[in-house]
Order: sequence, then C-alpha cells, then structure tokens
Amino acid sequence: MPHVVTFGEIMLRLTTPGQSRFAQATELEVTFGGAEANVAVAIAQFGGQASFVTKLPDHELGQRAIDELQRCGVYTSHILRGGDRLGVYFLEQGASQRAGKVIYDRAGSALAMAEPSEWDWRKIFEGADWFHWSGITAALSPACAAMVQQASAAARSLGLKVSFDMNFRAKLWSPARAALVLTPLMQHVDVCICGASEAASVFGIAAASDEAAAIALAERFVFKAVAIPQRHSASASATQFGALLRVGGEVVQSRRHEITVVDRVGSGDAYSGGLIFSLMRGDDPSHANDFAVAAGVLAHTVPGDFPLFSLAEVEALAGGADGGRVQR
Amino acid sequence: MPHVVTFGEIMLRLTTPGQSRFAQATELEVTFGGAEANVAVAIAQFGGQASFVTKLPDHELGQRAIDELQRCGVYTSHILRGGDRLGVYFLEQGASQRAGKVIYDRAGSALAMAEPSEWDWRKIFEGADWFHWSGITAALSPACAAMVQQASAAARSLGLKVSFDMNFRAKLWSPARAALVLTPLMQHVDVCICGASEAASVFGIAAASDEAAAIALAERFVFKAVAIPQRHSASASATQFGALLRVGGEVVQSRRHEITVVDRVGSGDAYSGGLIFSLMRGDDPSHANDFAVAAGVLAHTVPGDFPLFSLAEVEALAGGADGGRVQR
Amino acid sequence: MPHVVTFGEIMLRLTTPGQSRFAQATELEVTFGGAEANVAVAIAQFGGQASFVTKLPDHELGQRAIDELQRCGVYTSHILRGGDRLGVYFLEQGASQRAGKVIYDRAGSALAMAEPSEWDWRKIFEGADWFHWSGITAALSPACAAMVQQASAAARSLGLKVSFDMNFRAKLWSPARAALVLTPLMQHVDVCICGASEAASVFGIAAASDEAAAIALAERFVFKAVAIPQRHSASASATQFGALLRVGGEVVQSRRHEITVVDRVGSGDAYSGGLIFSLMRGDDPSHANDFAVAAGVLAHTVPGDFPLFSLAEVEALAGGADGGRVQR
Amino acid sequence: MPHVVTFGEIMLRLTTPGQSRFAQATELEVTFGGAEANVAVAIAQFGGQASFVTKLPDHELGQRAIDELQRCGVYTSHILRGGDRLGVYFLEQGASQRAGKVIYDRAGSALAMAEPSEWDWRKIFEGADWFHWSGITAALSPACAAMVQQASAAARSLGLKVSFDMNFRAKLWSPARAALVLTPLMQHVDVCICGASEAASVFGIAAASDEAAAIALAERFVFKAVAIPQRHSASASATQFGALLRVGGEVVQSRRHEITVVDRVGSGDAYSGGLIFSLMRGDDPSHANDFAVAAGVLAHTVPGDFPLFSLAEVEALAGGADGGRVQR
Amino acid sequence: MPHVVTFGEIMLRLTTPGQSRFAQATELEVTFGGAEANVAVAIAQFGGQASFVTKLPDHELGQRAIDELQRCGVYTSHILRGGDRLGVYFLEQGASQRAGKVIYDRAGSALAMAEPSEWDWRKIFEGADWFHWSGITAALSPACAAMVQQASAAARSLGLKVSFDMNFRAKLWSPARAALVLTPLMQHVDVCICGASEAASVFGIAAASDEAAAIALAERFVFKAVAIPQRHSASASATQFGALLRVGGEVVQSRRHEITVVDRVGSGDAYSGGLIFSLMRGDDPSHANDFAVAAGVLAHTVPGDFPLFSLAEVEALAGGADGGRVQR
Amino acid sequence: MPHVVTFGEIMLRLTTPGQSRFAQATELEVTFGGAEANVAVAIAQFGGQASFVTKLPDHELGQRAIDELQRCGVYTSHILRGGDRLGVYFLEQGASQRAGKVIYDRAGSALAMAEPSEWDWRKIFEGADWFHWSGITAALSPACAAMVQQASAAARSLGLKVSFDMNFRAKLWSPARAALVLTPLMQHVDVCICGASEAASVFGIAAASDEAAAIALAERFVFKAVAIPQRHSASASATQFGALLRVGGEVVQSRRHEITVVDRVGSGDAYSGGLIFSLMRGDDPSHANDFAVAAGVLAHTVPGDFPLFSLAEVEALAGGADGGRVQR
Repeated sequence: MPHVVTFGEIMLRLTTPGQSRFAQATELEVTFGGAEANVAVAIAQFGGQASFVTKLPDHELGQRAIDELQRCGVYTSHILRGGDRLGVYFLEQGASQRAGKVIYDRAGSALAMAEPSEWDWRKIFEGADWFHWSGITAALSPACAAMVQQASAAARSLGLKVSFDMNFRAKLWSPARAALVLTPLMQHVDVCICGASEAASVFGIAAASDEAAAIALAERFVFKAVAIPQRHSASASATQFGALLRVGGEVVQSRRHEITVVDRVGSGDAYSGGLIFSLMRGDDPSHANDFAVAAGVLAHTVPGDFPLFSLAEVEALAGGADGGRVQR
Repeated sequence: MPHVVTFGEIMLRLTTPGQSRFAQATELEVTFGGAEANVAVAIAQFGGQASFVTKLPDHELGQRAIDELQRCGVYTSHILRGGDRLGVYFLEQGASQRAGKVIYDRAGSALAMAEPSEWDWRKIFEGADWFHWSGITAALSPACAAMVQQASAAARSLGLKVSFDMNFRAKLWSPARAALVLTPLMQHVDVCICGASEAASVFGIAAASDEAAAIALAERFVFKAVAIPQRHSASASATQFGALLRVGGEVVQSRRHEITVVDRVGSGDAYSGGLIFSLMRGDDPSHANDFAVAAGVLAHTVPGDFPLFSLAEVEALAGGADGGRVQR
Repeated sequence: MPHVVTFGEIMLRLTTPGQSRFAQATELEVTFGGAEANVAVAIAQFGGQASFVTKLPDHELGQRAIDELQRCGVYTSHILRGGDRLGVYFLEQGASQRAGKVIYDRAGSALAMAEPSEWDWRKIFEGADWFHWSGITAALSPACAAMVQQASAAARSLGLKVSFDMNFRAKLWSPARAALVLTPLMQHVDVCICGASEAASVFGIAAASDEAAAIALAERFVFKAVAIPQRHSASASATQFGALLRVGGEVVQSRRHEITVVDRVGSGDAYSGGLIFSLMRGDDPSHANDFAVAAGVLAHTVPGDFPLFSLAEVEALAGGADGGRVQR
Repeated sequence: MPHVVTFGEIMLRLTTPGQSRFAQATELEVTFGGAEANVAVAIAQFGGQASFVTKLPDHELGQRAIDELQRCGVYTSHILRGGDRLGVYFLEQGASQRAGKVIYDRAGSALAMAEPSEWDWRKIFEGADWFHWSGITAALSPACAAMVQQASAAARSLGLKVSFDMNFRAKLWSPARAALVLTPLMQHVDVCICGASEAASVFGIAAASDEAAAIALAERFVFKAVAIPQRHSASASATQFGALLRVGGEVVQSRRHEITVVDRVGSGDAYSGGLIFSLMRGDDPSHANDFAVAAGVLAHTVPGDFPLFSLAEVEALAGGADGGRVQR
Repeated sequence: MPHVVTFGEIMLRLTTPGQSRFAQATELEVTFGGAEANVAVAIAQFGGQASFVTKLPDHELGQRAIDELQRCGVYTSHILRGGDRLGVYFLEQGASQRAGKVIYDRAGSALAMAEPSEWDWRKIFEGADWFHWSGITAALSPACAAMVQQASAAARSLGLKVSFDMNFRAKLWSPARAALVLTPLMQHVDVCICGASEAASVFGIAAASDEAAAIALAERFVFKAVAIPQRHSASASATQFGALLRVGGEVVQSRRHEITVVDRVGSGDAYSGGLIFSLMRGDDPSHANDFAVAAGVLAHTVPGDFPLFSLAEVEALAGGADGGRVQR
Repeated sequence: MPHVVTFGEIMLRLTTPGQSRFAQATELEVTFGGAEANVAVAIAQFGGQASFVTKLPDHELGQRAIDELQRCGVYTSHILRGGDRLGVYFLEQGASQRAGKVIYDRAGSALAMAEPSEWDWRKIFEGADWFHWSGITAALSPACAAMVQQASAAARSLGLKVSFDMNFRAKLWSPARAALVLTPLMQHVDVCICGASEAASVFGIAAASDEAAAIALAERFVFKAVAIPQRHSASASATQFGALLRVGGEVVQSRRHEITVVDRVGSGDAYSGGLIFSLMRGDDPSHANDFAVAAGVLAHTVPGDFPLFSLAEVEALAGGADGGRVQR
C-alpha cells in the first residue's frame, strides 16, 4: 500500500449542537480536524497508509488529538509533543439562509510556535511515497512556511510526489500575503488543488472557465495535475459539488451532485484525499476525479471534519448509487 | 372494534443518533420494532384492537419489548417468554447520498428457535377477525415458516381474513429460497402487499406496470386484494411514496407524496396497518388506499419503527392537509 | 437609540427534541417566548432599547423568564411579580407532512389574572418612543383587553407610536370575539401587521390581493402603515416567506425567500421587531420591509421563539447573502 | 391475583437533569407520577392487578399519561377523559445541603375540576379487592374530597379493604384544613399509613414514640393496621429509611437502611404499594413491613416517581442483599 | 442596596460531562466563570448590586460571556470589547480518588493583553461602595498587576472598601513571584481572604493555627478583616468546608459542613461574595462568617462556577437547614 | 518497553445512562470492553506495549471495536476478521441497595465460534514478553479452551511469562465445569490472580485467610506469584478495594481504599494490568501490589471498562494522593 505523509495543524473543533447558535449552546461537540489531518484520515479509511506530522502540547487534550488520529488508523509516531496551546476552532453550523460561522482560536498553537529545526524530514519520509500540505500550514507563521518549504524540497529530492491544496482562509492572511509566501513554494508541487476563485484572488489568474484556470495554473507553475473543486451553494442547507481535473493535457469533468448538507467542513479535504489515493493506485483521471468527488460528496453527509466512510462507499457513489435505500 | 392478530419478531432497535455513523456514535437510541409488531401498533393507534404474538426471553429487555407494545395499546397476553436472545438490529440512518445501513443481530432469537408446538392458534385467534404476517417471519427459520403455515391455515378455518406483506430482506434469505417457502403459503392469503420488484425477483412476475403486477399476483395466487407500494428515492433524505391497490377487479392509484425523510423504517408496515384497518372498517378501495398511503407517509416523519400517529392525523393527510401550519 | 415598550405574556416553552412526538419525548427543551417578548428581544438584539412589560409569579421559573430576557438585553424593571401561574406552552415540531402542534397551558396565568389597576403606564412609558402589542394579549382576558386599551391610549397621548400585530390564535378566541374586542382598540394604532387571511376572518376584509387588503385596512382604521406577512408552506419542512408593506400611499413588496425550516414559531414576531426597528431609525419603506422580512427569514433558522441574530446578519441577508458559505 | 384500585391525580413531572437548578436547566426530563398512580404501578410491577382511576384531558399529553401507566401494566380503562389541564409538577433534585424543590402547577387540573357524579364506583370496583387513596386527592378540591368519601364508602360496602396514606403537602392545604376534611373519612379506612409528625400536626397526636403514635391512631380511628414510615435525612444525598407497622396488637419494626439517594420522590408510595401487596397475599406483619420497607428503599435508587423494580428485587433486599455486586 | 465592583477575567469554562475524562468526552458543557465574576454573581443573586469589569473580544463568544453575566443580574456596562482571545479553561471533574483537573488556555486573553490606560476607574467606581479583586488578576500580566494597583488605590481614595482573595494558582505563577507582585498591593486592602497554606507559601506566614495565621496577616498588612477558608477533602467526592474570620480583634469560627461534592470550583468565590454581602449590610462577624460559609457550601452543590442560589437559601443553611427534605 | 499479548473477547458494552434502568433507558451508552482487552489497554495507557488478539466480524461494529483499541494505543494487527456476531453485553449500573446487572448476549460470537487452527501463536508472540488470559476466554467454548491451552504452552515454550485471572462468571459456566477446564491449564501459568471465594468455589481451596489461600494456590499449581484482590461492598455506591500479593515466599498486603463508585466493571482487569506492568518493569512485590491496587481503585472512578488513566496518576495514588484537590 502506498504511503502518504501530510503535515499541518490539527485542532480541537468545538461545534454547537444541532442548529443552535453560539448564543445558545450549552454544550459543544468535541471532534478534531484540520485540512492535512483530514486528508490523512481519508487515505487511512480507504485502506492506504497515512502518517500525519504536527506538534501538540503535552497535556490530555493534545494526547486526545493523537488518540483520535490513531483510532482512524493514521500513523502518529512523527508527532512532536510540546508547546503551550492546542489550536481550537469553534464552529456554528449554518441552516438555510443563516451561514455557518467559524471562530478561530489557533494563534500561538504548538505548531505555529515551532521551529524548522525541530523536524527531521529525511526520517519522516522514510518509506513514504507522497507528501501533502495546504496553504493553511504556510499561513500559520513564517516558521511554518519555512517548514513547508524544507519538507517539500526534501520530499521531491527523495522521490515523493507532492500535492498542495490552496485552502485560502481570509481570517488567516490576505491574498497578497498568500501569493508572496506560496509562489516560491509551488516549484516543489506536482499536484495542485485550487478553487477557481482562489486562483484568481491569490495568483491573479482570471480565467474564463474552470478549464482555463486549470490550464493557466498548470502552465505558470509547471504542475503535473491541477484539480478545480466546484461548489454552488443555494443556502447553508443545500449545495452542489463537483470538480474538474486536468492531468497532463487531459481534462475531465465530474457530474455535479445535489447535496442536502450535514456538515460541509472538510469536504474539500476529502476530495484531496480521494484524489491522492486514486492517483496513487493508478486510476485514470476520469475515475480519479469521480472517486475524489464522491469522497467530497460523502464528506458533506458525515458530522465532523474527518471523512469517516469506506472505500466501498466511495466507489458505490462514484458508480452511481444515490443513497436512497436502506441497506438491509 | 375489529381485532387483528399479527405474528412475528420484535427486535431491540439501536439507532445511531442524528446523522452520526456506526464509527462515531457514543450512544444508541433504544426503540423496538419489527414488521408485524409495527402493523399491530398502527392498528391500535388508529383505535382498533390488535394483538401481537411472539416469543421473548425472560429478562429485562424481553420485558421491555412487552412494555413498549402495551404502552401503544397492543395486547400482549399471547406472547411467550423463554429462549436465549432478543433479536437486535443496529440502524445507521442515511443522509443525502449516504445510504442508511442495518446490521442485523437476530440469529438465534427466541422466536427463531421456537417450535411450532408452542403455539395454540385456536386460542390465540379467539375473538379475532384478521391475521397478518410478513415474509420476514417465514425467513427466520424452517420452524417459523411452519408456524406461519399453521397459523394461516387455522385463521382461515376460523373465518379470519389473512394478509401477507412480502417484506423481502436480502440479508435473511435469497429470492429463490423465499419463493420456495412462500409459494405454498399463499393459498391461505386474502390480501397480499408486495412491491413490484419483489414480485419480479421472488415470484418471477415481470410485469410492464404496477397494475399488471397486481393483476398477475391476484390471478396466480387467487388473492382478494393486492397492494403495490411505490417508492422513488432521490436520496436518503428525500423520497416519494404512493401505492396502487387492486380489490376484486377495481384498481385505484393514490397520489405520490414528496417526503422529507425523518425515518423510513416501518413506513411499509404503516401502509399495511392502514390498509388492514381501513378495509376492516369497510372503506372503499380508493379511500382505503389513500388512508394507507397517508399512514405510510406519516411513518416517514416519525422517529422509530412504530407508527405513532392518530386516526385523525391520517385522515387529515388523506384528505389533503400538507403539514405546513403549526396547529395553535 | 430609540426605545420600544412591548406588553404581553411570556411563557415557558417546552419543546419535544428533534423530530420526536409528544408520545415519545423523554425530555422537553426549555426556552421562553411570547409574541411581544419576542419583539422586544429582536429590537434589543439589533441594538435598540427594548422594555418588556408583563406579570410573572414569584417563583424560580418566573425568575427564569426574567433571566432569559435580561440575557438578551431586554429591560425587565417594569415586570410585576405575583399571581399563581407561569403560562406554559408545549410545542411539537412538525416534519414534512406532519404539522407542528401546540398545546397551550396558559389559562390562569399571572398576566391573565392581573388587574388594570396594577400598571402605571405613564411611568412605564418614560423615555420610550414606541409601544407594541398583539392580539394575543387582548385575548387573554377582558382585563388584559382593558390594559391594552389603557396602555395604547396612554402611549398615544404621550407621543409614542403604537404598533399592533394581529396574531390571531384560534385556540384562544373566535374571529367574532376578536373583532368585537379589537375593533375599538384600532383607533390607537399607527402601524398594523395583519395577514390577509386574518384581515378577512376577523375584520371581514375580503380583498382580491394583499395590496388591496392593506389599502382596505389602512382606510378603515386610519393606520399610518400596514404590513401583510406572506407565507406559503409546502410542508412543515419548507416554506416561503415575504411581506407587503404599505406606508402612507407607498406599497413595497419584498422578495419571497425559500426556507428550509428549523423553527417557525416567532418568525412573525421577528418580522414585527425588524419593521419597528427599521422604521424607528428612519429607513425607507422598501428597506424597512426587506429588513423585516430578512429578520423573519432568519427567525425560521434559529431554534426557539427568540430571534437570536444580529443587525449585521439581518442586513447581510436583506442585502442578498444566501448563507451558503461557512464564514472562516 | 388480588386486584387493587387506586384513585388520585397523575401529573406530568418535569425534572431538572442531573444536579442542575431551575435557573440552569435547558431541558426537563419527562416522567409521570402521583401518589396513588405510583402505588398502582408498584402493585402491577410486583405481579398484582392494579387499576388507576383519574380524569385526564383529551390531548396528547393526557394520552401520554395513560400510555405510561399501560406500559407498567396498570389498567386504565376507568380513566375519564376531559377537562382542561393536565396537572404538572416541576422538580429540582437536591444535592448535599441543597434541598430538592417542587413547584406545583396542578390547580385547575381535570381531576380537581371533576364532579362526583362522573364516577360509577360500583362499576369501577367490580372484581376488586382493595381500594387505596391518599390525602393529596382529598386536598385537590371539595369535590375530590366528596369523591373519596363516596368511593371509600362504596368500597367498604362492597367488601374491599381500604387503605389511606396521609401524604400531607403543605403547599396544598393547612393541617387544620386537612384535619377537618380527613377526620370524617377515616371511618372507612382499614389500613392507615401516616408519619409520626403528620399524626401530630394533622390529628394532634403528640406521641412519645412511633409505637405510641401507631397505637393512638389505631385507637382513635379504629384502624386494623397502622404503618409509620421513618426517615432521617442527613442531607439531600443521604437518608435512612425504615418503618414501624402495627397490625392488630402486634408491632414490628424494620431495620433502617442507609441510602445514597437517587430520587426520593415516590418512596413513600412504594412503601404503601409494598405493604398493600404483601398484606393482600397474606404475609405476616413482620415480612409485610420488611417487604414494604425494601420497596421504599429501592424507590430511592430509581429515577422518577414510578417504583420500577421487580418482586424478586424487593424480596432480595428484604432478605438481606445489599446491592454491592454486579449480577453477572 | 450597596454596590460592589469586581475586576478580573471571565473565561469560557468547558467541562467534561458526568464523570467522563478528557480522553472520553464527546461534548463539553459550556458555562462561564472566573474568580471575580463569580463574586459579582453571588452578590447580584443575593439582591445586591454588582458590576463586573473586564475586557472581552468582539465576537459571539465574548458577547456570550456578557449575556451570561446579564442573565444573573450583573451590570456589564463597564466591560471593554476588543483583543483577540477569550480565556478558556477546560475542566475535568474528579471522582473519589481521581482528582479534578484544569487545563488553562488563557494566555493572550483580551484582559491579559490590555493596557492600564484603557480603564477610567473614577468613572467605573461612580456610585460604588466596595471593590473586590483576587490574586489571579494580578497574575495575568504585569499590566494587569498595574491595573489592580491603580484600581485599588482609586477605590480607596474614593472611599470604597477593598477586598482581596489570594486565589493562588500554581499554574499561573510561583509563590515567590506572587509575593513580589502582591505585597505592595496589600496596602490598599481592607479585607483579606487567604487560606492558611497560601499565607505560608506566598507570604511566609507559618502559623500554628488558622487564628494565628489570621492575626499574623492582619498585623503585617494592617487588614481590617482576615478570613481563612478551611477545607479538608477526603476525596474528590467528599469535603469539609468552614472558615475562620477575624474582624478587628474578634475571631469567629464557623461549623464545618460535610459535603457531597457536585462542583467545587467557585466555592471560595461564593464564600467571598457572601462575606462581602454580609459585611456590607452590617451583619456581625459571626453571622457574616456563617452566611459566607453557607454560601461556600451551597456552591459545592451547584454545577458551574456561578453561585446560583438565593439569599433565602443561604440564610436557611446558615440557620441550620440540612437539605434533607424536598420542599413541597 | 516490554510487550504483553492478551487474548480474549472484546464486546460491545451498552450501558443505561446515569442511574436509569433497563425498563427506562431511551439510549444506551456505547463503549467496548472485555477482561483481556481491558488489561491490554491498561498496559498501553501506562506506556507499555500491548497487543490484543481476538476475532471480530467483518462489519462496521467489529471495526469499531478495533478503532477503540487503536485509539488507546493497543496493537490490533493480530485480530482476525470474520464470523457472524460481535459479542454484546448490556449493563445497568447499580445504585445504593440496587445491584448492577449484566445481560450477556455473547453466545455465538466470532471468537466463540472460531477454531484453534485459525491462530499462529508463534507469529503472534514474536517480540513479546508476557501472555495474559482469563477464565472467561476458556469458558466461551471448548475450542476457546483449546486455544488458551495452545497459546499458553506456546508462550511458555517461547520464554514468555504467563498470567491468568480467574474472572469466574456464573452466567457462563458452573464452578465444576470451570475446575475441569482450568485445572490442566494451570501448569502453564506463572502468575495467578484469583479471589479467595473463587479459589474456594472453583478449586475447592477453603482457606482461613487470604494469605492461606495464596499459599494453597501457589503450592497446588506451582505458581510463581499469586494475587488475591479484596473487595468489600457496602452497597452498589460504595466499596473497599485492596489486594494481597504473594511472590515467591513474600506476602504483601496493600491498604484498603474506600471508594465512591463510578463504574466497577473492569476494576479487576486494571489491577491485573497494573500488576503485570509493574512486575515487568521489575518493581518489588510491595510496590507492584500497591501500584496494581491504585490502578484498580482508579478504574472504579472512570466510566467504561477501559482503564483510561495514566502512569503518573496511578503512581500518585499509590504514593498517597487522595484526589481531594482540583489540579490547577
């Protein structure tokens, strides 16, 4: 089984239950999540090997983050312990015309305060085939951007494939700052996942179509593959999800699924995890994109960041099942 | 008030809360259900008399099943106590493209291990007007199939009407096995409820339309009435429900209701219970079918197997109410 | 900031959780609500000053009602303590074709048993700009109707604007009784909020359109403004909401929002609160109506009677946001 | 199996969860209870026949009260439907030095507003052996006191035994009023259950010991048996429970159990139910008292008013088991 | 009514439910608390006027902290908005031999990062009679220590009484650091609340008895009154609580209550609030200490930091009630 | 770090919440447990290496059992998948005089139906130092007894230490049957953990003291060490726990801890895990016994079977900490 390493921050996610608001909730649901951790979980759930790298404080809630990853089958032996804080994010789910809301409380986290010298990438990548990171990690601190740079370079030099998901977060940095930090890092990236509007706002790629955006990205940064996730949300309760994928010169477009939303956080990461898994096992671009989109769709139907569904479920949806029958 | 006897297995149903998955749930919701028990509850809720016959282990959870039936007004005096196991089924509700899932844990249940000699059908049917069973009971064990045979024959000889609901479950037996067991039992059945696809897979009736399927069933087995429930599910969250009913030579087709699904398990049983209740009180076929369909629709909106709604509510929906106003 | 006084009953609301029925619920959710209290909360949430006037029993649950109002920033210093009962209403939320249900248990409440002489309206209205009441208050008892008459007259004589929301409740009185009690009170009203069907059933205004109803109401009772909330509910789970507003001779019609319903109780009050707030700060009729409709729409998305959302959220929806993106 | 009829009010009990206060609870637990209903449940749980007589409003929550009784095996066919209100009581459980609190909201209940002419006691007592009522029923209204008088007289004339539990509630009436109403009713009573302090405050029996109180009660009212429940509570979390029973001239004293309290409401009713059941089946006074005390003790360990435990469990505790081992 | 101002940090408290551990909890209970906020709540609950001063971030959870204070009747108009973080503390309740645990996540909170120049103490103290702070506030940052110094000096110069509670927290600072920061601040303090072991570790007062410690504290720092809370905990589930109070030369010792613990966090603050309230209304030292101890005892019986009980409840316990009877 | 292998059944444990009974619970709490799995978890929590060996069905709930073990750091790579059933046990916690109850539903589980030939013990024990099993495994089926025999023999031949915990369960087999099956297996055991009453009932060792029982066991079966756990339960809510340990000829007796019980299931397994861990790292008998007892005590304070506490917590309690202070 191929082996993927992902690197980033995992946070304690505290979610208001049901449709209750921050002003109302008398309890918060405890889960954990973070873009790169979610990708690792996806790959482990599908049957691949996945290792998640981060730094976590040496207290019970830092340990809990590790427990939750282990439970999903993710390798945690390269996680460092130390620092003061576990990043936290508070999530209020939206409903109908009321948008979901995130309050980030992640400044000063163990990872954000870590130093590049703490990591031995050569050791971390032993036996690995693929390295994945996202823009969020680079946004956490200049040191984190440096770590990503070192990790990506090491990965490439060791023969790993490198994938990158833009994951632009306006509450973490500006598009201009993102462009400044990310542009030099793109040279180490093989597979780029980036929404069309992110390509426009961060990289200034104002394309007339998703295909054009994919081509422009691929040409500017010499990516082997570019994926453009596509969403259209009528409200907080209903959305469409699909994606365009360009591998080499081939462009494939998935169907667009109409979704009754349970939890949209982490659906992009499920797409990324699905794409990496599918490309790693050698699927053709069309199936890889359909598989990844199916993973993204299912992620909307499961509470929490983590993509807790199986290879068989993703394959079934990619193959046309609609979920309309109880399996009994 | 007419009196219906139903016979089958009632199980402990353990449901994951909200949209959580088997991998996530830290508690399971406790309800009870089973096709024939659900029918008995429907009839008792509508104001009829209903007696449920089964065998349950002599421990607290076996007693709980009886408590829950009594609470709904179902007579339980013919329930035997003994055996080792209470049948259990685990249910994970679906959402959008993610299908609901059932894990059956019912092998070796008290009823499945019971012997035909344990039942005195003549006594059980005293004062009763109708006997109902479903294919699930016949699938539990050869002994159970024999019990159904004896009960149906006794019921007919005592002047009761007999109804049968196919309820084919692929996790319990194959279509071929079902055909073998069920075919000889059909001679004791007056009213048959059977989906068109079940008629095709089990009885080999490949009809061009639901009406044709109803005619074919009625002709082959000399049923007085045949009902064909009709579902079309866009996803786990949305479905259509309606039915075609043929009584004697008259065929009636209900409207098809668009449903936002709360809990689809037991909706077919609610249809059956509604149909039996309505036919027993002498409604004409068109109203009987509309009433039964309304019961089936409402069953989609109530958590749990049991059809917990009133005669007035079913009549209101059968009469055109849409649920759109708070009653205050 | 302008200051609004509202007068009426606040009740303990006991709601069945999730989609469970009165026959099933093993716990009831505790919130508080009442038409005029909800309006006061809306105005306080938007940043206005709001004072709620009522009478509550001198026990822990009476105090809890005050706590909940204070928590939302509503002034409670004019609330009287005494009497025997806190009004209660039990709410079962509907789902799809199953309608929501209210069981009122409010007879004999502290307010319903209060006497007009207990209130000093001149003192209550010190520093206030607007007085709001609804038909429910007048329906509670003849004494309550007299209180409303005295309060409205005092408010007008002190230069306050007076608004009235019909809020007809068939479980409290008949249309004929409502007409008898309310008609003489209309002379003190500046702004009338009344559904077209209520105008017809209570005041006998059978208009061909909502605009015609607004004109007829304005002309008969010499209102400065008339608002006609508009709902079309496909089921308990989905509804449309909009409104027509006529101020002086100008008529404006909002867009109609398609809503996935979380909790529809209190949405009309949110519209009223939004309308009062917007008119008080001098918005033009079109924006006032759009703002008020947005408040009414958001109220459908928040559990409980109280309109717990901010000015910014209402403005965003009035300005076209659809809720489809998580804010992060 | 002997058959007991009990008569009184069953209320919706709404309990704050865990140790939360009325000021804090965001949900209330739904159970049902009332002194005489609790006695009926005890007898049915132990395997006797019990019929509960009351009047309940014709709405879903009135029906729910019936459902809950049926579930416990209590006969409900003599329950009248009608009236406006279901009695409600709010319960906040105590903890350590903080006392439990009840807010009664039962005025105007269906039973309190019922008329004596609504009951046909001769029919109600068909097949019955014992009639039980408590002081609470007599306190509800003068009409209820009259009903108790008629029922007791009818019961005696039909050969039933009559038992009475004082259950003095200071929030319902004064000791003087209780004495006035209850004294003439005592002539119909065979078995009297009355705390020593109640005997003193209501009947003016200032005895030097529980035995002396029992003798004085028996002599003044010519009771066949008198039971004196004995409690000593160190705090809301810990209590002692025992009882003295005098039957004819024989006096027996149980051991006093040290209890870690789960829910003390209904423990006296469990004692009464145990005593009636044990006397009915012919136990000697010593075992009857030990059995009844064991029932009272177990009632402290089960949430809710209803004494949900079995004959075997009561016998085990009466026989010396201490609960210290998991049964596996 | 006298008016107290308290100053410090209020945090989001996230508590594991029941006896679950950080490793297990799937939801965390949401309350708010902080030493000085708890004192303000106590005084408002008892009927006094209390104003809480702090700084909170301008997001929904910052607002929630204000909502919760308002709900308890605490004035919040002097709370500043701004800064990045709301302080958080995670609490795992202990049980038996397993100790409770706090994980602080309060570094960088809005208050810790605030500047002395942001506060106008002269305006804040308008109409106030008393100022209370605790060692925690001084420990948050040097700026916070400076604020406390300025506030205390201003309070004294304006004629307010000043009280101080040591509240030493080993996770915030060392005894040596505390001594350095706190010693110069003691000159502005009238009433000092300090455990005997804290007096020893921070101020080096190694006294042979609590009375000796009180004398030594009073003499060294010229306090008008010194209170020594006394605890002896057999385990996480059981504790004793009492206090010694020295006012002028008079020393009083309360009884020591045996407590079954519900929630011990905030019990010292309840003592402080009770003491301030009782001294402000002119109680003699013995009653003031008994009242304050009763408040401290009741705080152990209520979930959450906030002392949610009434003047009447505290007086009852101070007067000898033990909580052993349900009030009904 | 030494490495322990344990072998047995892990079950889905479904627990009634709070103090609710099987007759009441509307949800059941989901955890997993089993004697040998609990021991593996203890060792992994303390920082050792532990591998759990069993067979689980190939469905979502079988996988969930693995997830829960992985989450605790237990190695699961030797777990077989297949068979029909996951063993289930229903647990109702006791309270005060009401005993806890277990309903086993484990017959026909994947492990009970497995064959000895499915296991390759030589491979399983690679790198391992210790093998642990309990009487429960031997009771499941004759095949399971054979597996234990083969495993123990293999372990001994490979140089592993072997420990055995009697864990007699009357609902699984009789003492006579246990004696017959277990006696020949004792020759492979180094360390025996066995209650004095179990030694008497199963092995007929009627000793005058725990020490005498330990000596008799050691002499009869040539054990290197014998541990006698000691419990005295006043009720379901309170118990004492201690142990006597004999290693070679040295006998040590721990203190007996007074425990307020949260969850007593699994406390003996925590003792076993603690003993194995402590002996493996070379502690002297006195510390090993104190450490193991402390683990057993803490297990009473944590919900669920799994001993979720740390090495540091066990050491602290073994060293005399009593849990009476919140760590902050």
